[in-house]
Amino acid sequence: MFRHVVLFTWVAGTTDEQKATVEAALKELPGAIPEIRRYEIGSDAGVNPGNHEFAVVADFDSVEDYLVYRDHPVHRAVIADAIKPILAERAAVQYAF
Amino acid sequence: MFRHVVLFTWVAGTTDEQKATVEAALKELPGAIPEIRRYEIGSDAGVNPGNHEFAVVADFDSVEDYLVYRDHPVHRAVIADAIKPILAERAAVQYAF
Repeated sequence: MFRHVVLFTWVAGTTDEQKATVEAALKELPGAIPEIRRYEIGSDAGVNPGNHEFAVVADFDSVEDYLVYRDHPVHRAVIADAIKPILAERAAVQYAF
Repeated sequence: MFRHVVLFTWVAGTTDEQKATVEAALKELPGAIPEIRRYEIGSDAGVNPGNHEFAVVADFDSVEDYLVYRDHPVHRAVIADAIKPILAERAAVQYAF
């Protein structure tokens, strides 16, 4: 399998509504992008200090399928419209497992 | 389920052997810590620029089981002996999904 992991921290003042918009928009992606095998996202639980605020873990059958997701117009729109406007920090890895 | 996601970037000059030592030590943890339900780790595939170098995605039945892992002496030893000496950056989220 091939996995995409990305962690986000939002800019100060980001509203709960903006965060909910991101989560809702991302949850639509498995329906729009059939290459997604698993898609598990969520907000940090606050168990440890210094964490990022949100995580996306997306699994694919291959790196090629991940690239379809990465470059898919529906995904790009979520990034441009919901994520980028409130993004302060981003950390990512893609790996085979 | 409860998930722990952590991404690492190693200090410049970290050897492949040191990286392999981290991976091998982490792969021992599911055998030592029965609370781990899924444990999928790996090095960044180099598909995108600016990524961290290594990812750990660990799943548990509950936040309590994650805390057993987090504070487990075998896990703490891997962090102290194999990870900390070569760690440049760390990004993490823990979330329910």
